[in-house]
Amino acid sequence: MTFSATDHAMMARALALAERGLETTTPNPRVGCVLARNGEIVGEGWHERAGEPHAEVHALRAAGERAHGATAYVTLEPCSHHGRTPPCADALVAAGVARVIAAMEDPNPQVAGKGLARLRAAGIDTAAGLLQAQAHELNIGFISRMTRGRPWLRMKTASTLDGKTALNNGVSQWITGEAARQDGHRWRARACAVLTGIGTVRADDPQLSVRAVPCSRQPLRVLVDARLEVSPEARILAGGHCLIATATDDAERTAALRERGAELLRLPDAAGKVDLPALLQELGRRGLNEVHVEAGFGLNGSLLREGCVDELLMYFAPMLVGEAAQGLFRLPELAALDRALRLKLVDLRAVGEDFRLIARPGR
Amino acid sequence: MTFSATDHAMMARALALAERGLETTTPNPRVGCVLARNGEIVGEGWHERAGEPHAEVHALRAAGERAHGATAYVTLEPCSHHGRTPPCADALVAAGVARVIAAMEDPNPQVAGKGLARLRAAGIDTAAGLLQAQAHELNIGFISRMTRGRPWLRMKTASTLDGKTALNNGVSQWITGEAARQDGHRWRARACAVLTGIGTVRADDPQLSVRAVPCSRQPLRVLVDARLEVSPEARILAGGHCLIATATDDAERTAALRERGAELLRLPDAAGKVDLPALLQELGRRGLNEVHVEAGFGLNGSLLREGCVDELLMYFAPMLVGEAAQGLFRLPELAALDRALRLKLVDLRAVGEDFRLIARPGR
Repeated sequence: MTFSATDHAMMARALALAERGLETTTPNPRVGCVLARNGEIVGEGWHERAGEPHAEVHALRAAGERAHGATAYVTLEPCSHHGRTPPCADALVAAGVARVIAAMEDPNPQVAGKGLARLRAAGIDTAAGLLQAQAHELNIGFISRMTRGRPWLRMKTASTLDGKTALNNGVSQWITGEAARQDGHRWRARACAVLTGIGTVRADDPQLSVRAVPCSRQPLRVLVDARLEVSPEARILAGGHCLIATATDDAERTAALRERGAELLRLPDAAGKVDLPALLQELGRRGLNEVHVEAGFGLNGSLLREGCVDELLMYFAPMLVGEAAQGLFRLPELAALDRALRLKLVDLRAVGEDFRLIARPGR
Repeated sequence: MTFSATDHAMMARALALAERGLETTTPNPRVGCVLARNGEIVGEGWHERAGEPHAEVHALRAAGERAHGATAYVTLEPCSHHGRTPPCADALVAAGVARVIAAMEDPNPQVAGKGLARLRAAGIDTAAGLLQAQAHELNIGFISRMTRGRPWLRMKTASTLDGKTALNNGVSQWITGEAARQDGHRWRARACAVLTGIGTVRADDPQLSVRAVPCSRQPLRVLVDARLEVSPEARILAGGHCLIATATDDAERTAALRERGAELLRLPDAAGKVDLPALLQELGRRGLNEVHVEAGFGLNGSLLREGCVDELLMYFAPMLVGEAAQGLFRLPELAALDRALRLKLVDLRAVGEDFRLIARPGR
């Protein structure tokens, strides 16, 4: 099937609708749906929250009888299984839509294609792949979890042009400006969890909540703290909703932190540190799609070395502070450039007086 | 005077013509001129080389009698003094042009406005300031020399995302890719001189010539070498046209390097190093407008600390090599962020698989 300009416009609209669920659909994917007849939208909707109706159901309700003979544009293949809600494929069949176009198939290899097959079996014309790249980006975390069992890990850094995150005396506030801070909070807001390490907690005592932009729910906070050195007074523990990954079974500290409402997860690796890949698997098992890391030199380096980083979100302030200041990532010394960790630039833009880049490992 | 859309278009054309002299006008400024009547171009020209006619003369020759009653668009105020060629203001008067619009006044404070005054005295309608910012950028080096007596110093760097220019074992080829290398040579080509330090010469033995892009003349090469440690076999000396700034008067080394065609300039400062601000003044005195620096950690840091850097041209390769590798600038340790060297982002763009930014000191 070749797609028309109208098809593209409708799917673009469905993607824009899907994006309204950016911060709320977790653990579900963000999905939008548009129903159109003769180039006119007769119904539309998006998935807002797990347990509530899927995008297709909202769109069908809005369209009513006008759904009959319409084309449904869905950013993700309609489901064919009974989850918390009945299968959307059945609802589309029942409403008498003539054609269903999905931006992409279900990323879960076990069910991919089954929703479209069910529609085809009912005589509906189907196609997939329209604006697929955009749909993929929108649910990159959900796709990661479905295909790899672990969340998409996005590591945020803020540094000077010479790659320094703080002065040697620990001073780091503020390297980047207000616009970068707000932009960073928007990325926090879409994440299912914000992860940091004990070094950052001791140096900066951050809250790691979303404050600079409106957000209807706060991401889970995850603290990597091998020896349970965090103070029960640390701000990251305030209000509960904090998971501490540790390598120790110190009963006293464990009790004190549980008292503060934290959940503790013991995941020691052979070296007595927190097993980071195992932590990611566990976060995936819990339904977390996107994990946003704001950590320091040590944990940043460990996550990179252990292949846990899927994306770097780097803010640079146009200033220089010199070599004595603290660097971005603790990585082993290299003997040859072909051992360098190579990335691919995905996005580059100015943010206020600073600039931001997004890069991903691999070329 | 308010400028019309036609005025803008004509001046944009004059700027494009001026840019054709980017690599050849030194020590003169790059200047373009368009003569137009009723929105139609009747003659145009640009300055190509010192000693040859100015842009206005070329345009007047092309226009012939059609110059009568025309508007002249010039990217720089027409000269009113006898230099190597007669004053352009007089030529415009003689040709009977009705109106002269200059993008900017002569940057030399001693003569600024005199050319336009001469035209006005002859009854010609004059104005200045159309597309002034663009005209200023085009001759930023000439303007620097006219107003400060020293060239515009542009420092080029190529590093990883974590701010490293080479591995600890010296390996630096190649951090950035072919597109960045070509782009860098385009910046070399427009410079009057390419400047480096003895550290870079010993580590990489660079030629510092323009090779990756066509260039009709090679910039002067300037080597900062306080103790005259450069080997007479160094590639930077090949073919002559190399100026060595030094702090020593070692007669034997001096003779050996002169033998190789180098010019030596003794400029010691109180610490026994090369007096960098004095070197810049001397380069200005010699008519050099833009100096392009490709140096290492030490000289880069010295130039920054001594306030010699007007612009940073930084290429970043999307790779990480870790803290053990060599940094960009040797700068003193800071106790507070307000002591950081702050820059203003001027340009940011992808170049092949790498990216490039241009930033200038000051906010």
